[in-house]
Amino acid sequence: MEGAALIGIDVAKEEDLSEWYQQVILKSDMLEFSDVPGCYIYAPGSYAIWEYIREFIDARIKKMGVKNCYFPLFISEANLSREQDHLDGFEAEVAWVTHGGKNKLEKRLAVRPTSETAMYGYYAKKIRSHRDLPLRLNQWNNIVRWEFKHAMPFLRSREILWQEGHTAFLTKEEAEEEVMEILNNVYATCYEELLAVPVVRGKKTKNETFAGADYSLTVEGFIGAVGRGIQCGTAHLLGQHFSKMFDITVEDPSIKVAEGAKREKTHVWQNSWGFSTRSIGVMIMVHSDNKGLVLPPRCAETQVVIIPAGLSVKTSPEDKSKLLSEIASFAETLRSIHIRVEVDDREEYSSGWKYNNWELKGVPLRIEYGPKDSTNKVVATSRRDTGEKGSISTSDLKTAVPELLEKIQADLLAKATKEYADHRKIVTDWKDFVPLLNAKNVCVIPHCLDGKCEDKIKELSTTQQKEGEVADVRAPSMGAKSLCIPFEQPEGIQEGVTKCVNPECSAMAKKWVMFGRSY
Amino acid sequence: MEGAALIGIDVAKEEDLSEWYQQVILKSDMLEFSDVPGCYIYAPGSYAIWEYIREFIDARIKKMGVKNCYFPLFISEANLSREQDHLDGFEAEVAWVTHGGKNKLEKRLAVRPTSETAMYGYYAKKIRSHRDLPLRLNQWNNIVRWEFKHAMPFLRSREILWQEGHTAFLTKEEAEEEVMEILNNVYATCYEELLAVPVVRGKKTKNETFAGADYSLTVEGFIGAVGRGIQCGTAHLLGQHFSKMFDITVEDPSIKVAEGAKREKTHVWQNSWGFSTRSIGVMIMVHSDNKGLVLPPRCAETQVVIIPAGLSVKTSPEDKSKLLSEIASFAETLRSIHIRVEVDDREEYSSGWKYNNWELKGVPLRIEYGPKDSTNKVVATSRRDTGEKGSISTSDLKTAVPELLEKIQADLLAKATKEYADHRKIVTDWKDFVPLLNAKNVCVIPHCLDGKCEDKIKELSTTQQKEGEVADVRAPSMGAKSLCIPFEQPEGIQEGVTKCVNPECSAMAKKWVMFGRSY
Repeated sequence: MEGAALIGIDVAKEEDLSEWYQQVILKSDMLEFSDVPGCYIYAPGSYAIWEYIREFIDARIKKMGVKNCYFPLFISEANLSREQDHLDGFEAEVAWVTHGGKNKLEKRLAVRPTSETAMYGYYAKKIRSHRDLPLRLNQWNNIVRWEFKHAMPFLRSREILWQEGHTAFLTKEEAEEEVMEILNNVYATCYEELLAVPVVRGKKTKNETFAGADYSLTVEGFIGAVGRGIQCGTAHLLGQHFSKMFDITVEDPSIKVAEGAKREKTHVWQNSWGFSTRSIGVMIMVHSDNKGLVLPPRCAETQVVIIPAGLSVKTSPEDKSKLLSEIASFAETLRSIHIRVEVDDREEYSSGWKYNNWELKGVPLRIEYGPKDSTNKVVATSRRDTGEKGSISTSDLKTAVPELLEKIQADLLAKATKEYADHRKIVTDWKDFVPLLNAKNVCVIPHCLDGKCEDKIKELSTTQQKEGEVADVRAPSMGAKSLCIPFEQPEGIQEGVTKCVNPECSAMAKKWVMFGRSY
Repeated sequence: MEGAALIGIDVAKEEDLSEWYQQVILKSDMLEFSDVPGCYIYAPGSYAIWEYIREFIDARIKKMGVKNCYFPLFISEANLSREQDHLDGFEAEVAWVTHGGKNKLEKRLAVRPTSETAMYGYYAKKIRSHRDLPLRLNQWNNIVRWEFKHAMPFLRSREILWQEGHTAFLTKEEAEEEVMEILNNVYATCYEELLAVPVVRGKKTKNETFAGADYSLTVEGFIGAVGRGIQCGTAHLLGQHFSKMFDITVEDPSIKVAEGAKREKTHVWQNSWGFSTRSIGVMIMVHSDNKGLVLPPRCAETQVVIIPAGLSVKTSPEDKSKLLSEIASFAETLRSIHIRVEVDDREEYSSGWKYNNWELKGVPLRIEYGPKDSTNKVVATSRRDTGEKGSISTSDLKTAVPELLEKIQADLLAKATKEYADHRKIVTDWKDFVPLLNAKNVCVIPHCLDGKCEDKIKELSTTQQKEGEVADVRAPSMGAKSLCIPFEQPEGIQEGVTKCVNPECSAMAKKWVMFGRSY
C-alpha cells in the first residue's frame, strides 16, 4: 500500500478545507494550475462533468424554445457603458485589450464579463414587431472577470465557462414566468438531479441583485465543511432597464388606441440567466472526502471500474485469460445499457494501488472479480460514497448495477440535503446568530430587507467572529451576508409585530432572509 | 410577391460575390455585424450548423480516444515566446490584454491565437512515462487573430470558433498515422458527408506550413464563383519542436541500453489539428444561389417546411381546420423519424411570400398541402437546390421524404464535385497558367517545391493578371499561391526530365502542386 500513500490526500477536509480541496482536484486529475493567475486548466476529468452539465441544461432550454448563438468575445467601451448600473457593477473587473500585434488599438476593447451589452444592440435590430417576440437566445462561452479577491479553482476564477441566456418578451408576466422556470426546472434541477447537490431557491435582496436587474433569483448551495453558503446560479429579471438604453421596442397590439392616434412604443421585458463551471467546484466540495473525489454516478465520466482480483503467480495462464474475458464481457454488457465502464487490468499496479487510485478519482462503483467469484458466479461491489461492500450475481448485472448506481445518486443527494437542513437554522434572537455561524451554520432570520441593515449585520458578525471560532484560516474575519430570501418562508413573521433581528435596527421584519458566510 | 423582392437578394453571385455573400448571410439571418471590426455575431441559423459540425467531429475524435478539456484564454508572454518559429508566425496578430479594471497588469497577456504554448507545459507535467502516452486532448474554444487583412464573415474573422486537437505520441509513426486519420476520416469526411463540400486532400508546401510544424496536411476547397481556392482545415505533424522547447520527454522502453547505462530521454512526437467556423462560410459560398441560402439537409436546422396551400376566404373553417390538423400529423410523422420540420401556418403572410422566405433561408425541401392534395392524398414537394417539383403520397412520407433529403444531399455534393473537377486544370505550360487562373480555375502544375519559386509564381501571376480578367474587384491583382501538394498525384512527372513550370525556374519538378488564387 506504499503507492496509496503517495497518491492520497494528506489533509483532512474538516481540518483545512482549502488545502484538502486543492489536493483533491489536483491529485484526481480534475484541474491544473496555469501560469496565468486565477486561470485554470480544466483537465478531461472535470471537462467531462461540464459536458454532462451542458447536455442537461442545453436539452432543457432548447425544449423551452431557447436557441443557441454566439456573440463576440470583445465589447466596445461605448456599448459596455450604455447601462450605468451595469457598468458600475463590472467596471472594476474588466480585462482590456489595448493592442493588436504591435499596433495600439484606436479604441480599447473589453473582454466580456457578461454579454448583455454585447447582445442587446442585435435585439434592437431584430425585434421590429411583437411578432418577433419572444426572442430567446443562449450562449455557451467564456467570460473574464479580473477579480482581485483570492482565486479558487472552479469557485472563483478570472476566466469562467458558462451559459448565458438572454430573452425578451412583450410582457412582464411572460418574463417572470420564464425566469422562474429557469431557476426551478433548469438550475435547481441540474444541481439536484445531476450533481446530487441540494439548493435553496430564493430571491436576492436588493444589495445582492445583479447590476442592472429589477430582481435576481438564485439557487444557493452550502459547503458543510466550513458552514458557508455559495451562490450556485442566478436568473435575473432585467425588466426594461436595458431595453430602454438599447431602444428595444415594439407596438403592443393589446393596447387600445383612439382612431387615428399613434400607438406608443412598448419597451420589451428582458431576462438574463447564467450557470457556470462553479457548479463543478460546489459538487466536489459537497460530496468528496478524505480519500479524494466522490462523484455522483450521473455526472461521472466513469461510473463503474472493474478490477481483476485474486490473481497471483500461481494462477494458470488459462484461468487468468478466462477471468479477463469474463470481465470484458461484463463490461460489454454494462456498456450495452449505456453505463460508462472502465476495466483496469494493468499488471504493473497492485490491486490495492488501483483501489486507492480509483477512489481518489471518485468512481462511484468498484467491481472486483477473481477466481472465487467466477466459481460462485458473482461480482464483489464496493461503493465509493459509503465504502459498503456487496455482491451481485453475474446474471443480474444488467438490472442490479444501474439500480445500485441510482441508489448511490439518491443517497448522495439525501445525505447532502440532510446536512444542509441540519445547518440551516431558524434564528429569531441576535444572541444566537454569530455562535450559530461559528458552528458552521447559515441562519434564516426575520429581516427588514433594508440594504444598510444588511451591511450592519455583516459588520456585526465580522467583529464578533474574531473573538469566536475561526471558520477558515484564509477568511478569519468574514461577516455574514444575505444569501437569499427563500421562496419557502418559515411561519412566524407577524406584520408590524416581528422585529428585524439586527439588534441595531429598529425596523419591522418583512421576510425571512437566509444569511451566512459565503464564497 | 411584393414582399419577396424586399427580402430577396438583389445582386447575382456571378456578378459580385462579396456583395452577394453579404446579402445572403444577412438576409437569411445567419449572421450580423457587431461594432467590433472583424468580429461577427453568429445568429441561431449559423450556430445550429456549427453545432452539427461539433457533433460530427466530436463523436469521431472521441471514438479515436481523444478527450475534451479546456485551457485558459490567456497565455503568458513567456510561454507564447518559447518556440521561436511559432512566435514569428503569430506575433503580428496577437491581441494583448494590458489592464484589469483600472490597474495595469504587471505582465501583459496574449489572447490565444492557438493553444500550443498554453497547453504544452501541462503535457510536460503529465507525461512522466511512456505509459502516459498517447496523450490526446481537444478543446472547443474561441481564438483571436488580430489580422489587418480584409475581414469576411466566417471566412476571415478576428475571433474564430474552432476545435484544436493536441496529441503526443512515443513514435513518429503513431503521430503520422493520427494526423492522416484526422485529415481523411474527420475533416475531409465532415466537408463531404455533412456539408456536401468536396475537398482536395494534400500536404502544404514548406512556405505554407504551420509555424513550428514539421509538415501540415490540409483539405482545400474551391469557390467556383470566383475560381479561388480556400484552406478548409489543417492537421500538423509538429514533430519534436515543441517537445524540445517544453521538455516533454519519456524513456522509450524499446531502446536497448547497455547494462547499468542510463536510457536517454526521448522527446515525444506531437500533432495539432484544427477545424473552424470558416467551414460554414465555405459551405454557404459553394451551394447558395441568387435566391439565397442553399443548405445541405444533413446540416440544415430545418430540413422540411410544410406550408398550407390553396386556402382562401371561400374555404370553410371545417376544411381549413381539417387541413391544418393533417399537416400537423405529417409533421409529427416526420419528427418521429428525426426529420427536422417546421410548419408555417402564419396567416399574416401569403404563400408566395413564405415560399420566398424559406428559400432565402435555404430549407432543403418545401412541402405544400392544400384541399386538392388532401383529396388526392398527396403532398406537393419543391426542392430548394434544383427547384424541381414533385409529389409524394401521404402514406409514403416516412420513406420518401428521408430518401429525397438524402438525394438532395448527394446531388449537392455531386454538383460541387463536378464544378471543382472542371476547374482544377492540369497545366504543364506556363503560357496557360494565368489565363486559366483568370478563367476561374486552380492549376495543378509540376513544381520544384522551392519556396522562392513559389514566391516568384505568385509575383508573375500577380503582374500578368492586371492585364487580363479581374477575378474579384476587391483583389484585382492577387497572385496565385500554392494550395497543396495533392495526395492524388497525376501521372507524368519524369524525375530529372520534367521541368518546374515556372518559366524563371531552372529546377526539375518534384511534385504536382495545386496553385490558385485563394481566400
